[in-house]
Amino acid sequence: MVDYPDYLQLDSLLSAQALESAKHGTPARDELLFIIIHQTYELWFKQILHELDLVEATFAGEQMDDAFLSDAVHGLGRIVSILKVLVNQVDILETMTPLDFLEFRDLLVPASGFQSFQWRLIETRLGLRPEDRIAFDGQPFEKKLRAQEQAALLALLKEASLVDRIDAWLARTPFLVMEDYDFAEAYRKAVAEMFENERAIVQSNDSLTEDDKNRQCAAFDASEASLTQILGDQVAESGWRFSDKALRSALFINLYRDEPAAHLPFQLLSLLMDIDELMAAWRHRHALLVQRMIGAKVGTGGSSGHGYLAETATRYRIFGDLFALTTYLIPRSALPPLPGAVQSAMRYQYSAK
Amino acid sequence: MVDYPDYLQLDSLLSAQALESAKHGTPARDELLFIIIHQTYELWFKQILHELDLVEATFAGEQMDDAFLSDAVHGLGRIVSILKVLVNQVDILETMTPLDFLEFRDLLVPASGFQSFQWRLIETRLGLRPEDRIAFDGQPFEKKLRAQEQAALLALLKEASLVDRIDAWLARTPFLVMEDYDFAEAYRKAVAEMFENERAIVQSNDSLTEDDKNRQCAAFDASEASLTQILGDQVAESGWRFSDKALRSALFINLYRDEPAAHLPFQLLSLLMDIDELMAAWRHRHALLVQRMIGAKVGTGGSSGHGYLAETATRYRIFGDLFALTTYLIPRSALPPLPGAVQSAMRYQYSAK
Amino acid sequence: MVDYPDYLQLDSLLSAQALESAKHGTPARDELLFIIIHQTYELWFKQILHELDLVEATFAGEQMDDAFLSDAVHGLGRIVSILKVLVNQVDILETMTPLDFLEFRDLLVPASGFQSFQWRLIETRLGLRPEDRIAFDGQPFEKKLRAQEQAALLALLKEASLVDRIDAWLARTPFLVMEDYDFAEAYRKAVAEMFENERAIVQSNDSLTEDDKNRQCAAFDASEASLTQILGDQVAESGWRFSDKALRSALFINLYRDEPAAHLPFQLLSLLMDIDELMAAWRHRHALLVQRMIGAKVGTGGSSGHGYLAETATRYRIFGDLFALTTYLIPRSALPPLPGAVQSAMRYQYSAK
Amino acid sequence: MVDYPDYLQLDSLLSAQALESAKHGTPARDELLFIIIHQTYELWFKQILHELDLVEATFAGEQMDDAFLSDAVHGLGRIVSILKVLVNQVDILETMTPLDFLEFRDLLVPASGFQSFQWRLIETRLGLRPEDRIAFDGQPFEKKLRAQEQAALLALLKEASLVDRIDAWLARTPFLVMEDYDFAEAYRKAVAEMFENERAIVQSNDSLTEDDKNRQCAAFDASEASLTQILGDQVAESGWRFSDKALRSALFINLYRDEPAAHLPFQLLSLLMDIDELMAAWRHRHALLVQRMIGAKVGTGGSSGHGYLAETATRYRIFGDLFALTTYLIPRSALPPLPGAVQSAMRYQYSAK
Repeated sequence: MVDYPDYLQLDSLLSAQALESAKHGTPARDELLFIIIHQTYELWFKQILHELDLVEATFAGEQMDDAFLSDAVHGLGRIVSILKVLVNQVDILETMTPLDFLEFRDLLVPASGFQSFQWRLIETRLGLRPEDRIAFDGQPFEKKLRAQEQAALLALLKEASLVDRIDAWLARTPFLVMEDYDFAEAYRKAVAEMFENERAIVQSNDSLTEDDKNRQCAAFDASEASLTQILGDQVAESGWRFSDKALRSALFINLYRDEPAAHLPFQLLSLLMDIDELMAAWRHRHALLVQRMIGAKVGTGGSSGHGYLAETATRYRIFGDLFALTTYLIPRSALPPLPGAVQSAMRYQYSAK
Repeated sequence: MVDYPDYLQLDSLLSAQALESAKHGTPARDELLFIIIHQTYELWFKQILHELDLVEATFAGEQMDDAFLSDAVHGLGRIVSILKVLVNQVDILETMTPLDFLEFRDLLVPASGFQSFQWRLIETRLGLRPEDRIAFDGQPFEKKLRAQEQAALLALLKEASLVDRIDAWLARTPFLVMEDYDFAEAYRKAVAEMFENERAIVQSNDSLTEDDKNRQCAAFDASEASLTQILGDQVAESGWRFSDKALRSALFINLYRDEPAAHLPFQLLSLLMDIDELMAAWRHRHALLVQRMIGAKVGTGGSSGHGYLAETATRYRIFGDLFALTTYLIPRSALPPLPGAVQSAMRYQYSAK
Repeated sequence: MVDYPDYLQLDSLLSAQALESAKHGTPARDELLFIIIHQTYELWFKQILHELDLVEATFAGEQMDDAFLSDAVHGLGRIVSILKVLVNQVDILETMTPLDFLEFRDLLVPASGFQSFQWRLIETRLGLRPEDRIAFDGQPFEKKLRAQEQAALLALLKEASLVDRIDAWLARTPFLVMEDYDFAEAYRKAVAEMFENERAIVQSNDSLTEDDKNRQCAAFDASEASLTQILGDQVAESGWRFSDKALRSALFINLYRDEPAAHLPFQLLSLLMDIDELMAAWRHRHALLVQRMIGAKVGTGGSSGHGYLAETATRYRIFGDLFALTTYLIPRSALPPLPGAVQSAMRYQYSAK
Repeated sequence: MVDYPDYLQLDSLLSAQALESAKHGTPARDELLFIIIHQTYELWFKQILHELDLVEATFAGEQMDDAFLSDAVHGLGRIVSILKVLVNQVDILETMTPLDFLEFRDLLVPASGFQSFQWRLIETRLGLRPEDRIAFDGQPFEKKLRAQEQAALLALLKEASLVDRIDAWLARTPFLVMEDYDFAEAYRKAVAEMFENERAIVQSNDSLTEDDKNRQCAAFDASEASLTQILGDQVAESGWRFSDKALRSALFINLYRDEPAAHLPFQLLSLLMDIDELMAAWRHRHALLVQRMIGAKVGTGGSSGHGYLAETATRYRIFGDLFALTTYLIPRSALPPLPGAVQSAMRYQYSAK
């Protein structure tokens, strides 16, 4: 017989708020709020890690059953949903004024959000690497964590992150080279035709001077070179994180997202971008809150607070390649149609009958 | 030396999720989510109760220092902010599909949200009475709670709720009868003049038939009678919850909210209405979720689920009087100006110099 | 050469706010807000109708190309996204106090939200029928609209609504009867086995009295009867709106949503439920706002305001069948596996190779 | 007799969407969305400008009636509420994929959000100066606007912005020097005592080495110097925007916000910070959206898009002084009590009786 309070372990949950200010004699009005909001953050972090377990498992093997892809999309969608609430609930913390925070802030030194092991796990498992991080205090990012947590994080860095798993899965996409179809070739040709067309329009425009025509055509040349660059090998050396094959597959999925077999892959890539955006939004709101709460003072963990957080919000991007790929999209009307064999392969069995 | 994980008691917090489905052999994919979202709800309920402690304390005495009123407004504002997050985070639970819920739902019987002692405390301390509740199963609402929780709630019902405290505080408002000023009189006169004016316009309108004129004037008579009804004594007998004096004060505060001494009281009354609206919104979203999750099946606690919750969303109103009062507002242009003595009393000391 | 202000027609857009109160001499502080928020509502309604055009088109023919289904899901997803903003922006209108509203409210009589032709179009095209509506003033719902708008709505009622189109599309689902597979049969058998199992557990439980055992088994019998009811023909006569075939298909899609060919259909059904929920949420917030703004007074269009709106929020449900279907879901572990042929038909072509 | 569609001028409003893509032959699926969301932005900008009119008016004169301050707080609160919706409705635009945007994007060149005159008005009237802006293309920010709009903006720059008005109003705050009370003196003394106390604790701590003691005391000296710096004259020369007097008043209001006469001023300062935060949040989301939509391509107006917008989100701060002031707050327990005369002056008349 299950009982609501036992099931939720409310006795221990609701007695896990010990105010430092109470230990020093006078309970501060808002310290309970400060503890509770951080506890809800950590509970949600646990749920995010649980969803990541399931998502990672779906990308573990060599083969990926379609039903698993649906699970991955479901799990990432839930992470997005949780991150939205985490961003929004900063509203509650903003009802605490700096004066109220100062009542107990000094008692918390040197505790710090830097010590959230779960948040570091989330960042690392998604694929944020030590070299992507902004140096702080000249110390490695994991320095403020407990010894066994540091060890766990360093071990984790040697394993495949979600970025790595997504890369391997993307690289396996079967449709890009099929019978006599070569996506890279078709894309290059479409881009060439598109620009040929543009150049012809410019050249036949009598209202333009010869100089204008030349300048505009030169701009087209540069754009074309840029658009086809992604098709070459060793692209990945020039600042991209994904492998050549994975990048081309991601481009293919973006371009042909309406084909049944591309539906879920496209949703999955979109959700990864959502996660990146929401983590940036969370850092951004957090930075603004710190600025409002303690101004130029240092954070309880010794960080310069606002500045550091604002920089992480702007620079940390785990799936940055997916954002950068949009540069390589072309209008749907310029999109080369897929040959019948490729299109069939991407349809459901029953529709082929 | 404070440490983030110790401070937040993360070891116990993050190990307080025991899945029933795991005990029965197979952990259900979404039971962790189900536990964690309810735990965050209970944590936020604890914070709401903490804010209520502070708000109630400000209304305890005979006198109310202005600085305390500011505290009460601050506390109620935070409750509003928390309730908004509670409503929004239903989004996360909606990512669970009925099929996933069914995996562990039967294992939870007869646990039920009816057993949330903290939510019952919030409702009761705000002022929801047993007679306001919708009967369920023919049992008293507290029946599913533990014995000592039932006792605590019944004891609480004998004490002053927030409604009672607000009533007493409103009734003490000093400005309604002052020297030769009587708000009830002034309001009655303003209403009379307003309608006199309307009647004159109708009577002098040659495009109306005699019948039309009579009909419209009769409507004005009825409106006037209704508007002045609230000024009589024993108003409170006809369905109102607040006392006569409190009702008139609330009306006064609504009408003269721009005067400095009415600023905070007006904000306070608005926040009480916000709380009522958000609790209704929460019940409403909860009802929709239950309908979506289990259809017409009974809830785990045995409730008919959706129907019951939808009805509570529509009918439970703690500060219903404040909503009803808006019927008695008149346009600002028809508002009788306050006499100098009353206006002065409502201004700051320094502005009088 | 396109210019931002010309492109958006800002000259006409930003001069389309004529205050009634200004015509009567004194511009009311908040009438501009009142006009602008309603104009943004109408602009968004236009966008919703545009998305409905596209969604309806995808369901028009006998055949439905997979790529079109993806379009339909995309369009419905956007409608959900717009409705969320419409619900949230009620926050802005709530910053207007009743006193400010009263300054210009009487000048608007008898204009009314009842006269929003676009909103009526949305409701009607989705599938709300005159008989689903709550009578108001004893008049048909379209009575307050302009003559040609009334005619357009009545004509529309003779055409297929989105409910009708979804019904026809669901009924065509090919997987339920295939070679020697019959979903209805398999589902009935699974339900029977599930309850057989439950009864055996009860019977072998020595801690129960004979009476208890009988009572519990009788409850299982009733549940089983209810669960299999939906498989019969003429189900649709007993209060369901969808046809027998459509209902069974919707149940199948809910149960086997992880199969590739069920992904998009499942998303589509979920979005239809989201739309219903958000329209209810919008009506609910609107009802609360009206209650707060004018109390028990009648609306500018003559409606009794709050009560009417609250009732529409609770009762209007266009895709109610989809909510009711959840009653018929069974735990995934009790779900009969699909035979190979059906599963293959629901997979992508390439995975079959 | 007012009619809903006439009142809202729906005929012109709903026919003000002319698709460029339609003029070029093929209406693009999502161009209507693109137009409508920008039109709703411009409608809301108009409302923000209307609220700014009212807010500015309250700060125009030498004297400020208390009732006007309440109006200003109300107007700023509404602007905050509108900005929240503007940030949230980016969600809708995110349902447009880059591929859909590319269908009509090139047709819009060189139209650009840079040409939103109303947004420039909002920024400028709040107090963003040309020298605060990030140079773009080496051109003045107003260059892309129409000639008469440029002239209007340049004229506006010569008038008092909201920052200027707030500065003048803050500087007039009467309580800081009163009879024998001098806030600067009292604050300096409180800070000195607070640090004296800290130094004594350190010196008597036997577990610290002499070196440690010296280092900690030196840190206290530096903090004290920093905290008292704001009391000197010509503070404003060192990077602050507000005048010396205004800064001290803002500090006073933050510290003594619980006194009745400081309630509204404190709310007002908080709302100004909210506006700054929300405008930053809007720029931040806009930057992320542009990155997602067009990658590294240039914007339709020729801007480098994402990078420029991300930088404005991080650097543009109109009320930055208010954020910086939090550095100078001290815990409430260290706050020197106000002398009786000052406290009385800040209370309501009636409470003095």
